[in-house]
Amino acid sequence: MILGCAWYPEHWDESRWADDIRLMREANISLVRVGEFAWSRLEPQDGQMALDWLERAVTLATAQGMMVVLGTPTAAPPAWLTQAHPEVLAIREDGRPEVHGARGHFNPASATYRTYCARIAGALAERFGKHPQVIGWQIDNEYNHVSYDAETLAQWQAWLMAKYGTLDALNSHWTTSYWSQEYTDWSQLPFPLRAGHNPGLTLDWKRFVTDLLRSYQKTQIDAIRQFAEPRQWITHNFMGWFDLFDHYKLCEDLEIASWDNYVGTGHLNYLSNGAAHDLTRGFKRRNFLVLETQPGSVNWAGVNNALDRGEVRCMAWHAVGHGAEVVSYWQWRSALNGQEQYHGCLVAPDGNPRPLYEEVSKLGKEFTSVAKFLRGTTPASEVAILHSYDDRWAINGQRFHKDFDPVEHLLSFYRPLRAMSFGVDILHPSAPLSAYKLVIAPHLHLVDDEISEHLLKYVEEGGHLMLGPRSGFKNAFDNALLPVRQPGPLAWSLGAHVEEYYALDTPVPVTGAWEDGEATIWAEWLKVDADNVEVKLRYGTGNGWLDEQPAMVTRKVGNGRLTYLAAWLDVPLTRRVVSWMTGASRLAPPFGPVPEGVEVCRRVGGGRELYILINHTDRPLQVELPRALQNALTRTVHPQHIWLPARDVAVMGARVEITTPV
Amino acid sequence: MILGCAWYPEHWDESRWADDIRLMREANISLVRVGEFAWSRLEPQDGQMALDWLERAVTLATAQGMMVVLGTPTAAPPAWLTQAHPEVLAIREDGRPEVHGARGHFNPASATYRTYCARIAGALAERFGKHPQVIGWQIDNEYNHVSYDAETLAQWQAWLMAKYGTLDALNSHWTTSYWSQEYTDWSQLPFPLRAGHNPGLTLDWKRFVTDLLRSYQKTQIDAIRQFAEPRQWITHNFMGWFDLFDHYKLCEDLEIASWDNYVGTGHLNYLSNGAAHDLTRGFKRRNFLVLETQPGSVNWAGVNNALDRGEVRCMAWHAVGHGAEVVSYWQWRSALNGQEQYHGCLVAPDGNPRPLYEEVSKLGKEFTSVAKFLRGTTPASEVAILHSYDDRWAINGQRFHKDFDPVEHLLSFYRPLRAMSFGVDILHPSAPLSAYKLVIAPHLHLVDDEISEHLLKYVEEGGHLMLGPRSGFKNAFDNALLPVRQPGPLAWSLGAHVEEYYALDTPVPVTGAWEDGEATIWAEWLKVDADNVEVKLRYGTGNGWLDEQPAMVTRKVGNGRLTYLAAWLDVPLTRRVVSWMTGASRLAPPFGPVPEGVEVCRRVGGGRELYILINHTDRPLQVELPRALQNALTRTVHPQHIWLPARDVAVMGARVEITTPV
Amino acid sequence: MILGCAWYPEHWDESRWADDIRLMREANISLVRVGEFAWSRLEPQDGQMALDWLERAVTLATAQGMMVVLGTPTAAPPAWLTQAHPEVLAIREDGRPEVHGARGHFNPASATYRTYCARIAGALAERFGKHPQVIGWQIDNEYNHVSYDAETLAQWQAWLMAKYGTLDALNSHWTTSYWSQEYTDWSQLPFPLRAGHNPGLTLDWKRFVTDLLRSYQKTQIDAIRQFAEPRQWITHNFMGWFDLFDHYKLCEDLEIASWDNYVGTGHLNYLSNGAAHDLTRGFKRRNFLVLETQPGSVNWAGVNNALDRGEVRCMAWHAVGHGAEVVSYWQWRSALNGQEQYHGCLVAPDGNPRPLYEEVSKLGKEFTSVAKFLRGTTPASEVAILHSYDDRWAINGQRFHKDFDPVEHLLSFYRPLRAMSFGVDILHPSAPLSAYKLVIAPHLHLVDDEISEHLLKYVEEGGHLMLGPRSGFKNAFDNALLPVRQPGPLAWSLGAHVEEYYALDTPVPVTGAWEDGEATIWAEWLKVDADNVEVKLRYGTGNGWLDEQPAMVTRKVGNGRLTYLAAWLDVPLTRRVVSWMTGASRLAPPFGPVPEGVEVCRRVGGGRELYILINHTDRPLQVELPRALQNALTRTVHPQHIWLPARDVAVMGARVEITTPV
Repeated sequence: MILGCAWYPEHWDESRWADDIRLMREANISLVRVGEFAWSRLEPQDGQMALDWLERAVTLATAQGMMVVLGTPTAAPPAWLTQAHPEVLAIREDGRPEVHGARGHFNPASATYRTYCARIAGALAERFGKHPQVIGWQIDNEYNHVSYDAETLAQWQAWLMAKYGTLDALNSHWTTSYWSQEYTDWSQLPFPLRAGHNPGLTLDWKRFVTDLLRSYQKTQIDAIRQFAEPRQWITHNFMGWFDLFDHYKLCEDLEIASWDNYVGTGHLNYLSNGAAHDLTRGFKRRNFLVLETQPGSVNWAGVNNALDRGEVRCMAWHAVGHGAEVVSYWQWRSALNGQEQYHGCLVAPDGNPRPLYEEVSKLGKEFTSVAKFLRGTTPASEVAILHSYDDRWAINGQRFHKDFDPVEHLLSFYRPLRAMSFGVDILHPSAPLSAYKLVIAPHLHLVDDEISEHLLKYVEEGGHLMLGPRSGFKNAFDNALLPVRQPGPLAWSLGAHVEEYYALDTPVPVTGAWEDGEATIWAEWLKVDADNVEVKLRYGTGNGWLDEQPAMVTRKVGNGRLTYLAAWLDVPLTRRVVSWMTGASRLAPPFGPVPEGVEVCRRVGGGRELYILINHTDRPLQVELPRALQNALTRTVHPQHIWLPARDVAVMGARVEITTPV
Repeated sequence: MILGCAWYPEHWDESRWADDIRLMREANISLVRVGEFAWSRLEPQDGQMALDWLERAVTLATAQGMMVVLGTPTAAPPAWLTQAHPEVLAIREDGRPEVHGARGHFNPASATYRTYCARIAGALAERFGKHPQVIGWQIDNEYNHVSYDAETLAQWQAWLMAKYGTLDALNSHWTTSYWSQEYTDWSQLPFPLRAGHNPGLTLDWKRFVTDLLRSYQKTQIDAIRQFAEPRQWITHNFMGWFDLFDHYKLCEDLEIASWDNYVGTGHLNYLSNGAAHDLTRGFKRRNFLVLETQPGSVNWAGVNNALDRGEVRCMAWHAVGHGAEVVSYWQWRSALNGQEQYHGCLVAPDGNPRPLYEEVSKLGKEFTSVAKFLRGTTPASEVAILHSYDDRWAINGQRFHKDFDPVEHLLSFYRPLRAMSFGVDILHPSAPLSAYKLVIAPHLHLVDDEISEHLLKYVEEGGHLMLGPRSGFKNAFDNALLPVRQPGPLAWSLGAHVEEYYALDTPVPVTGAWEDGEATIWAEWLKVDADNVEVKLRYGTGNGWLDEQPAMVTRKVGNGRLTYLAAWLDVPLTRRVVSWMTGASRLAPPFGPVPEGVEVCRRVGGGRELYILINHTDRPLQVELPRALQNALTRTVHPQHIWLPARDVAVMGARVEITTPV
Repeated sequence: MILGCAWYPEHWDESRWADDIRLMREANISLVRVGEFAWSRLEPQDGQMALDWLERAVTLATAQGMMVVLGTPTAAPPAWLTQAHPEVLAIREDGRPEVHGARGHFNPASATYRTYCARIAGALAERFGKHPQVIGWQIDNEYNHVSYDAETLAQWQAWLMAKYGTLDALNSHWTTSYWSQEYTDWSQLPFPLRAGHNPGLTLDWKRFVTDLLRSYQKTQIDAIRQFAEPRQWITHNFMGWFDLFDHYKLCEDLEIASWDNYVGTGHLNYLSNGAAHDLTRGFKRRNFLVLETQPGSVNWAGVNNALDRGEVRCMAWHAVGHGAEVVSYWQWRSALNGQEQYHGCLVAPDGNPRPLYEEVSKLGKEFTSVAKFLRGTTPASEVAILHSYDDRWAINGQRFHKDFDPVEHLLSFYRPLRAMSFGVDILHPSAPLSAYKLVIAPHLHLVDDEISEHLLKYVEEGGHLMLGPRSGFKNAFDNALLPVRQPGPLAWSLGAHVEEYYALDTPVPVTGAWEDGEATIWAEWLKVDADNVEVKLRYGTGNGWLDEQPAMVTRKVGNGRLTYLAAWLDVPLTRRVVSWMTGASRLAPPFGPVPEGVEVCRRVGGGRELYILINHTDRPLQVELPRALQNALTRTVHPQHIWLPARDVAVMGARVEITTPV
């Protein structure tokens, strides 16, 4: 566990640097991120590298024992570059070129731009690739756009040609006979810039964007790997649920996943935010880094309130609870001018600590004190929720009900699981599943043979798979409707199928094995096709079509179980359904019931089992413990329960583990 | 009465076609719409016609006894055409050209485009113009745009030159001395793309757009008429209240009017929706076609809920009640890919009927069973509401009160009339009026001598004309203010005038002959100028200006009556005013009071008088009958009243008419 | 006090003109504004001047004793000019050129355009510059835009070069090392069109726009001054709080300030509207003109309701109460066509008076009858509120809390002062302050040495300066953060500083010297650094950071007092704080408590002291008088109190002043 911060020495006179490093060390910060965005200083003119200042800054930090992460500066090309090569400027969706003066104005498809990126990344790697305290690299910053220019268009058309081979195949897959869309020349294929383009085209565009950004990233990775020692990892700082591209694919070329975690207006919602941590952990299915997080407030929200006193510390421990290895604040100190003057940071414009500095110092001390106990541990879980960008893109492209937000739908299952203290892994459907007793696919919208066989094998071998509504609806290859009823290739095993689906303008009552509730947003009419299918829920009187029809069925299949929940249920009924599923999957939560607002995070590894308990509320709360546990932060042993003060944290483990550091 | 559906054989392998036709016939569907949007299949390359597949499809359908409506495919030009002739692509309001991949991307002013349209329409007509079961043609699809390109601009300038002759005349009519707008060269005349252009220019633009689309349509009509037999009608599927162009003008070149009737989110509002039917019936003042309607749900709304069980059937009978001769579902079956995958249809992706299929089958059987009784009948009415696109354009261009929606204002009179079971015709002010006892002009905003003389003649000869607020305000020729007080040329006959008009930020009380109420949105201060003018309503204390002033006056004029209602009244008071007007016009409703939610539609013709009664609610309701009537659907005779089940329909007539089919 | 109206003789046949002038005179209107927007009539072709018609109109008016204000017509270039010189058309932010047909479509930076403007302005001045009844000139109309074209860009880059001298200096001031923004060529400097450009760049842009419009204005002033006699003043009609440019700077070249005062939807809010009057009076620190105001209603709002009967008169007296010398209605009569057909005016389309005409006539008579008593008087005040465009631009560019509207924040202090009958001057921070007992700087955001020394001198010499939150935060030269804690250079004298600032998502309680209240939107944590600092308010329990910290401190400094209020307080608590401040500043209101809805305006001069009392409500109210006063409108003497009818006015003074006119 490492506490870090982003440092931009290039914003300050060199005479200030030593004070900054000293203040960081006093705050128990042991890692700095540098280099990101500094292109105009690293290469002031075309080809004229000026890395000495950065080396002096790195030397200053590492001399004080700090670790360094180097960012490539490619998210902000210098003015001399965009002036000499205007084609490296991105064209926006409205057809106008970007301008200099902010960031992210480059065209990631541009061959010229990539050449410049490779050169600066290579130069940095040549200089720092063997530095013992440079532990890793961050490529670019928060990939967030592509360009709508001729070069990108040509690559898009070539990508389609590579996928489909012939226009006949493309036309057939996309049913372009619809509205006379048939393409007779590859050059006719457009950007999906008009509202309501063909679903085949719009889904393929997302996949193309993924490949485009992946190859943009790969150019820099290759340039760095020419010089960097293998121990130096390469990562990129992603943005939680952002869905411009398929993060699983981009992570294939990275050693470790990272993300930037900002709250914006309001306060930490630990249930939702925890899911974004778990998502990021799922990219590489291992611990990850929080490369940027909020020191108090941001500057880009409507109301940039500060986190309450103590909340920043809770948020850091919450990250660790979900598997973060690094928690790094953005940023150390705001530049006196520039767009982010008002962003939260640790040092005020006068160069002295801001009030939050003290809270972060305490946190740094805690990280240091318990680092050994957590080393080698990772969140472990017997429940997985399946998540794919393809499904989200396809549903978001045609929500049918405006409120069918796939992420919100996924969270409707995630939240009750976490409230019951279960750890949850969020995984791509193709991930190995044998370690899980329960796998929830909230909306397995697009399917192909590979996925359905993989999932059925999981069930046959003893797993419990729950499919939610909209599952098995479309063909993963081309976003076409499957010419069978839902859930498509999984219907035969389920012994039931979806007769019809309905977007709901008014809720429909649902009754059955548990207390009554309601379906909202979405409801499907299930029909049972086999004998040994158990109907767990039925609709009451609604739109006439759904009345008395099954809403949830479950069936033993092989050594396992296949369940289909056909509606988006209200929160209390979802909680009961989830509770039933965990029971039916022989899962027991690590803790008994905990008060609302208390988070239980379990990390295991190296034979140790640790619990991070966080009271996210502003009042003290008591937590019953499953057995006697010791708090590593206080060294106090708690036989049965622990009183957690408001906005406070305990790191609990068996006494022997805590008192006998690894 | 014909039940139909849109069928796109080009989306499917030919081997499937026979199953589709069989399933249609089993659902008692007897008409298919084909050809619309199929240009890329009908003319795969420039000039290379490929109509054989369509002929095979038509043959397959007609061999099973079906009728066919052919659509021209011009709403979606193929890619080879837009690639070879980029000038046929529309330029959008933002100055950017449209792209391929959706529909409606053509420029209807383009001479090149029209040439291509004429050729494909002519080729279709040559092939199908004498086919005995091809009963009609639909030109293009839902005209909804024009282009902002140089070719359109030149036509616009030429149109203005033709209207005004000289720039002096144009400058004078538009008062272009205002803001130095004076034009000294025809080429200076712009598109009205800037917010707040001259009212003369903006109104003329709408009229030009009307003429542009009419001539675009005429090119295709002429091409078809070269070959088609006269018995084949030509129509276009309009979109209800949509107001891009003057529908009366476009209908002058069509034999029959049609529209596409979609509910979107929620459920059928039979009072509002009925007005759109009556509007369409008024285009040709005869029965019309519903060429597209919603089989369950649409896919383009925020919440695409399905209509409740039974509601689709009620909606079809409601259309028939208002004069529809055809009710045709869009569409039979969704293509597996393409933009409208999620739209409601009758057959599922697996090729088997969806649940709604059964309800439609029942409807088709009913249509067949009572067709003879309805043949030759049409809705008949003694009340007309006047409607003109000019008035709507002028008011919408300068609403003065943001909530003065002319359609909503018209409906404020329409709804209480329909709730009292009156049939209502919605007509252009120039239509023949002698058949009506009461004519309501909700807002006769633009007037010229012809219209005012026409209306005064109607009054003199015994009619009752009610003018609503904003009447007689502007000059119909140029959208200029009339240099007289409202209602302009009608004020002398009224014996009163409008002293001042007020947009209301708060309601103003209104008292008088009936219970008290309120004026909202709009109120005019009437001044009585003659002796025999009766003041029916006065304002109470409000903004100081209106206090105690007349709000509604009426006067006997010749053999008739002229009434001016100077305010937009609340719903209950409007109901009383309308009730008084019908009484003062010696009108009696065909039915006594019916429960809310029950619609009474009267059709007469061939000596028969039939009532379609629809219970639009989800509970059974009893309706008192004016005399003993027989239900043609059940053959039951009801001496005094009938119990209508929830969402159910009765088609009632004199026993002899129903038992003795024509 | 002069009553006027805008008259556009060019919209009407010359035969009508005499009637218009006669009706104006009968309404006691004694001033007409003419010429504005009439370019196409004054110069029908390039260089061909046609001023005779205007001279005939002016002669007609002045023959009836009227005064004339001439507007230059440059806000609406004629079509021949924009056609011949397309570069004079403005380029909009979206990159598209403006089109002809409305107004404001010119490029104020264009050298070509300025040449044409100077010629037409000069020609008008040559003709009318010595006319004895032409009393003044208005340049253009409501400056409201600039152009984003190459000519403007080059001027912008040259402006920056002039300010910074070298790119190194610019880069340093703007910290362009941030995001590699460093400029290496002046031609790289962009328009600030992208959301989130550098704060240095965005603030300098506003200052450049100010200079651009000032030089555009100066071109016309110079052209007029070649011919016009010095007694003819030159003004421009500004738009209240509009902030495209620094009004103080543009007023340096004008003899008198003017503004256009429109209510839009709803009714006069005399507290807010009065502040806009006082703002305008502060531009030149003398009485001003209302060149346009609303005769009943406008036409551009969502709901264009009319002002209530009597409200137009109250609004005119309210303007006089705040220092207006002219109240001029826009407009006399609406043109029959053109964009503003529906705007309120005094004469109807039929050429006869509208109902409001009578109210305005009465007002005109009153103005005439009391003109002598008011001559030479002006609102006088011992309280000033500081206002600067720099501060508003800087805060609005980075509000940090979306609701931190600087104008609303200023008004939160202005309203309670006016409700206590205090006159208030609104001034630039650099204005002379020695006349004021209390100076409130609601948010003195940007500071430099000059301003801070000026303010400290005011305090040292006995003034009471109150600084509000966000004061002393940034450097006025370049919008950079000050490298010290707030309030920067004023902190030492205050004996306290801001430890941290917080945007509030929830209110925080505030307690102290008065009743408890709340901080909303913004709160700063004050730290006391000296002994003799009095803490007047403290925060209660909130976000943990602010708990128990000081929220308001005050300190005697020299002969005066310095107070810092660190939060935006709720309305009742703000009222108490303001009340305390006035007391602590030894200020006494001219009147005791007056009923809510009654406005007291005090004007002094020439040894006289007059009160304009306005009852803005719709019910009669009694006002206690400080001593016996006479109402100049009725000549009645009121010993102790006066009953003001609903929406009525009294002009009160000492008996001797009113009965012995000057």
